[in-house]
Amino acid sequence: MLVVMQQDATSEDIRRVVKVIEDMGYQARPIPGEQRMAIGVVGNDGPVDSARAEGLPGVQEVISVSSPYKLVSREWKKDDTLIPLFNGTVIGGNRTVVMAGPCGVEDEAQLLETAEAVALAGATILRGGAFKPRTSPYSYQGMGIEGLKLLAKARDRYQLAIITEAIDLESLDAVEEYADIIQIGARNMQNFSLLRRAGRAKKPVMLKRGLSATLKEWLLAAEYILAEGNEQVIMCERGVRSFETYTRNMVDINAIPVIKQLSHLPIIADPSHGTGRRELVAPIARAAVAAGADGIMVEVHRDPTTAKSDGPQSLYPEQFRAMMADLHRISDVMGKPLTASLNARGH
Amino acid sequence: MLVVMQQDATSEDIRRVVKVIEDMGYQARPIPGEQRMAIGVVGNDGPVDSARAEGLPGVQEVISVSSPYKLVSREWKKDDTLIPLFNGTVIGGNRTVVMAGPCGVEDEAQLLETAEAVALAGATILRGGAFKPRTSPYSYQGMGIEGLKLLAKARDRYQLAIITEAIDLESLDAVEEYADIIQIGARNMQNFSLLRRAGRAKKPVMLKRGLSATLKEWLLAAEYILAEGNEQVIMCERGVRSFETYTRNMVDINAIPVIKQLSHLPIIADPSHGTGRRELVAPIARAAVAAGADGIMVEVHRDPTTAKSDGPQSLYPEQFRAMMADLHRISDVMGKPLTASLNARGH
Amino acid sequence: MLVVMQQDATSEDIRRVVKVIEDMGYQARPIPGEQRMAIGVVGNDGPVDSARAEGLPGVQEVISVSSPYKLVSREWKKDDTLIPLFNGTVIGGNRTVVMAGPCGVEDEAQLLETAEAVALAGATILRGGAFKPRTSPYSYQGMGIEGLKLLAKARDRYQLAIITEAIDLESLDAVEEYADIIQIGARNMQNFSLLRRAGRAKKPVMLKRGLSATLKEWLLAAEYILAEGNEQVIMCERGVRSFETYTRNMVDINAIPVIKQLSHLPIIADPSHGTGRRELVAPIARAAVAAGADGIMVEVHRDPTTAKSDGPQSLYPEQFRAMMADLHRISDVMGKPLTASLNARGH
Amino acid sequence: MLVVMQQDATSEDIRRVVKVIEDMGYQARPIPGEQRMAIGVVGNDGPVDSARAEGLPGVQEVISVSSPYKLVSREWKKDDTLIPLFNGTVIGGNRTVVMAGPCGVEDEAQLLETAEAVALAGATILRGGAFKPRTSPYSYQGMGIEGLKLLAKARDRYQLAIITEAIDLESLDAVEEYADIIQIGARNMQNFSLLRRAGRAKKPVMLKRGLSATLKEWLLAAEYILAEGNEQVIMCERGVRSFETYTRNMVDINAIPVIKQLSHLPIIADPSHGTGRRELVAPIARAAVAAGADGIMVEVHRDPTTAKSDGPQSLYPEQFRAMMADLHRISDVMGKPLTASLNARGH
Repeated sequence: MLVVMQQDATSEDIRRVVKVIEDMGYQARPIPGEQRMAIGVVGNDGPVDSARAEGLPGVQEVISVSSPYKLVSREWKKDDTLIPLFNGTVIGGNRTVVMAGPCGVEDEAQLLETAEAVALAGATILRGGAFKPRTSPYSYQGMGIEGLKLLAKARDRYQLAIITEAIDLESLDAVEEYADIIQIGARNMQNFSLLRRAGRAKKPVMLKRGLSATLKEWLLAAEYILAEGNEQVIMCERGVRSFETYTRNMVDINAIPVIKQLSHLPIIADPSHGTGRRELVAPIARAAVAAGADGIMVEVHRDPTTAKSDGPQSLYPEQFRAMMADLHRISDVMGKPLTASLNARGH
Repeated sequence: MLVVMQQDATSEDIRRVVKVIEDMGYQARPIPGEQRMAIGVVGNDGPVDSARAEGLPGVQEVISVSSPYKLVSREWKKDDTLIPLFNGTVIGGNRTVVMAGPCGVEDEAQLLETAEAVALAGATILRGGAFKPRTSPYSYQGMGIEGLKLLAKARDRYQLAIITEAIDLESLDAVEEYADIIQIGARNMQNFSLLRRAGRAKKPVMLKRGLSATLKEWLLAAEYILAEGNEQVIMCERGVRSFETYTRNMVDINAIPVIKQLSHLPIIADPSHGTGRRELVAPIARAAVAAGADGIMVEVHRDPTTAKSDGPQSLYPEQFRAMMADLHRISDVMGKPLTASLNARGH
Repeated sequence: MLVVMQQDATSEDIRRVVKVIEDMGYQARPIPGEQRMAIGVVGNDGPVDSARAEGLPGVQEVISVSSPYKLVSREWKKDDTLIPLFNGTVIGGNRTVVMAGPCGVEDEAQLLETAEAVALAGATILRGGAFKPRTSPYSYQGMGIEGLKLLAKARDRYQLAIITEAIDLESLDAVEEYADIIQIGARNMQNFSLLRRAGRAKKPVMLKRGLSATLKEWLLAAEYILAEGNEQVIMCERGVRSFETYTRNMVDINAIPVIKQLSHLPIIADPSHGTGRRELVAPIARAAVAAGADGIMVEVHRDPTTAKSDGPQSLYPEQFRAMMADLHRISDVMGKPLTASLNARGH
Repeated sequence: MLVVMQQDATSEDIRRVVKVIEDMGYQARPIPGEQRMAIGVVGNDGPVDSARAEGLPGVQEVISVSSPYKLVSREWKKDDTLIPLFNGTVIGGNRTVVMAGPCGVEDEAQLLETAEAVALAGATILRGGAFKPRTSPYSYQGMGIEGLKLLAKARDRYQLAIITEAIDLESLDAVEEYADIIQIGARNMQNFSLLRRAGRAKKPVMLKRGLSATLKEWLLAAEYILAEGNEQVIMCERGVRSFETYTRNMVDINAIPVIKQLSHLPIIADPSHGTGRRELVAPIARAAVAAGADGIMVEVHRDPTTAKSDGPQSLYPEQFRAMMADLHRISDVMGKPLTASLNARGH
């Protein structure tokens, strides 16, 4: 349930509504909006009797939220959530963004050369893993803090916003310090302590869908973050596990319009992990944008044959440029043109 | 293995190659091509010693086909298969086609009004089930032959090619007589007797992917049809079964570029069955075309609320028209413009 | 809905009930029971108003059947269906049966030697494919009628009942003639024409679960057979498709107690196809019996290394004997002792 | 690779082998065995040249380990890992254990009464969640430390070993202090920081399989724990996600014999979460034991209708007693009799 206050409601009106909600045994969460204040009722799984709030002074209307997730739902907030970044990029709304970069940060030359390539081709957000969650304890686990410092260097040089993964509470502290967007990976989608910590972070969070998470579970995982106060959340569809072995995962393209319908949060698609094959990245990126995604995240490496991880799914810089040309045209059709880098060739 | 003959190879040369192949214990299948004749070697699962064929008179080159499917593979035939229909529509190649119509043929008014609506909006192929494979023996099983006759009437009136499903040998005889394209449904994807019969049909066949068929199994099912001599086969991705219950199926968008890569056969996407929800049909149709599909098949009903089957996933005519406008623009980006109906508004 | 008649109900009473049901727009199906006659109402998906039948002369009670499947449900028929075979074996009820033999019939020596081995170890039903549904058109397709004749020979020699697969209408005619149980394979679970034909067969039918069929779909497929009048149906869980690649399929052991609960039909487990690995067959066979299965079907070959199909999952005769010893003891715990062959060692 | 030392190898011999391994670029991990010392080579994904170690003084043999997991593999350690608990229960080897108790600890009376019931019926390990990982942030999250204290009280009173879940680093500290076995839940199976911390714990760890984890991923997750030094790890199959909605999950019964074959670690089955339905728990528990499981974990509640979580899958105490009677007999057939509680009725 969402109690929407009138524009001229007083703080006394608001306090009264909060008290009534708490007296009913729920939690009240004031949500400042562009036009007016709203107060959310959380802590209820089922329907709430709205009559007690409806008659109170200063209350304009009471909106029912039928889904188990509240703060992430379109019922709760009708307008698209917008996530502005330092370099002018805005995620969500009527723009399409591109996040690109290597799977993992490997060394300064690899990162900076790849960053330059993706910036020139029009990406405005640089991805690169410094902390890598690896299936085997004996696999390469990432550069850690040194990787974050290299990402910061690339940001300064190319005006690219940085997104990188936090894999636990410790790395989240570091990522929050260095990055512009904190990524929570698929394996951690239901690591609730990490979600709560991300909910207290001062940076936007991108939440990847778990390997076999339902859309409802995924939205509820996002709800953990919003419920702690961080409303800057981006969903990321990265493919789910299936019986098909030709591709690494199965991109659930249905998820894109469904999430746009159920939630106000932006959604990004990751065709690199979604397919696991370089030659499929561009077609699936185009499909995601045509389905309504607010952007894509792709792996690009200046030399994929030498990549320490995910080489087979990393694009060569020239493949990335070709893909960007197609995305430009499709995002225009969608009425959500690509956010262009100032570095992009021709600007 | 594929033995490609020189342009001036004689029929004696060809007979000699066939004999050598048969002496090796395989079957030889002459394939007439646009420029030159080729002879396929089937009946082998593993590698074949090509040396015996390479030196023979009239032989230009011997191509190895590494996949378990032969005739459907790109190795076997590099150029896209084109499937021309009576009304000028060509499936495959550099055009995008739209098949639309009701889930099932219900009565003359329902069919003709829906047919007119989709023709006016630019579809050139009319879908409509006369024989319905139903999960329950107690569900509506379709109009049968009477439905086929109504489809034929719609074809004559609106110059729409007809596609309709055959569910067994008996209905295939009837569908072959009345329709322009014979559809084999997902549940029959591995009904090998039906596939063989379709392989002897004089009409093109559209083969839907099974509910949990791998891409390899699907291509091998198509191989059954081609191996009987019918090379006019269209693949149709219609969503696979998954753990997600919000949508009816999960559209495997990855399948589209993969099939285009592995096979010369055209591929169509069916967002209606793929999603099971009307509001998702247009986004997924756009995505399929952006991923490289050669067309889409969608359910449209003049009044979905009265449909005997699949009402919730059927588009209203005005939704279909809106979707067509988007597909026009995206298919142009792909360099595969929509095949327009002569009936389309404005023509 | 099921209308149960009193023991002394007259045929006039029965005719009257049938007429009332038909007047309500449904089909009436008289079901002769051990104690009394019942009349089933089919053709309804939802609830039926039972009041009109309840008051009629000769009617004892009206039972509601809430599931979409009727004739296969426990609501419809409380007692276990029993399927007696010529050699004294009864499938269903308080006995556990074992079906064993090669994947495919390959030649007389292979079949008879394997048949002797499984009979000596206590199996009473011989399996062996004469018609093989193969994923590739180029794979071995079975011996056909000659295979059926060899199976009949094995039956005569070892008093083993025969089960073998029918893959289409044509092979079903032949299988019905030669075999004691007609098997419908997983790929044909929703081949509704074949199911209907099996429903008119004079022999029991074993229906394998489809690769990704839900339990409800599987029961509805069985309903197709019963609805045509053949009540001698055996369900067979053979593993479903999953993301795990270590095993060929994932045996859904949950399905066994669920089917026993929802339906009166016997259920058999096939650990050979369910696992695809010889070393897992015995553990899974034990598990199936412990979960309440009415029997198991396993592949045994006198020399698996030479098998034309499914060699890796076929047991050596001595492995089969060891497994039988365990099954004897577990089926005793379950109160459903193994049906022993008269040929079994020690008899 | 595993270097097995002779019984009379000196510590100088061992040091020399370690140095050679490290010179080859790998890590050496001495493993004290019952009869003799072994030295493991980790940090390699592929084959290692064993020749350099084979000739060294004190070396008896060099064993190749082909799987990506090392310490958890049967190649590495042939004998079953045994996990002894304070009350005489040993997990692994030739005994079958039963863990039982409520889903969550709710209050003292609920816990102690349930504990008494399961102890009297023969369970020797008490389960009960104090920290609950919940899909929704608004669901009941468990009693926390107070719950652990109640579990400790139950242990003292009924001589039951305690197993309870740790959901993050903070709760793991607490669980390690109070419990006898630390449970890592399915959602945390690839929470690598938590796995590493568990690997440094002084208590055994039970690792549940992730919702869609392959067997290889699951074994590699266990490898994280062993690689940190904790070899007391128990695997727990709790069902995987599938397309079937009748049951909560699909118990992968194949996993039980596969894990026993690939690994020396004990494996437990959880039919409560595996099925989500009370009436299926006993059949699946029997199946798991018949498939070779080393024990089962089941939810029992003195009054399931009042349970705060998982009520529909919790057994009534009398159902639990009936199930125990069956498990007694099946575990005897398996040659792995049930470990009986001293409290069990009749002792």
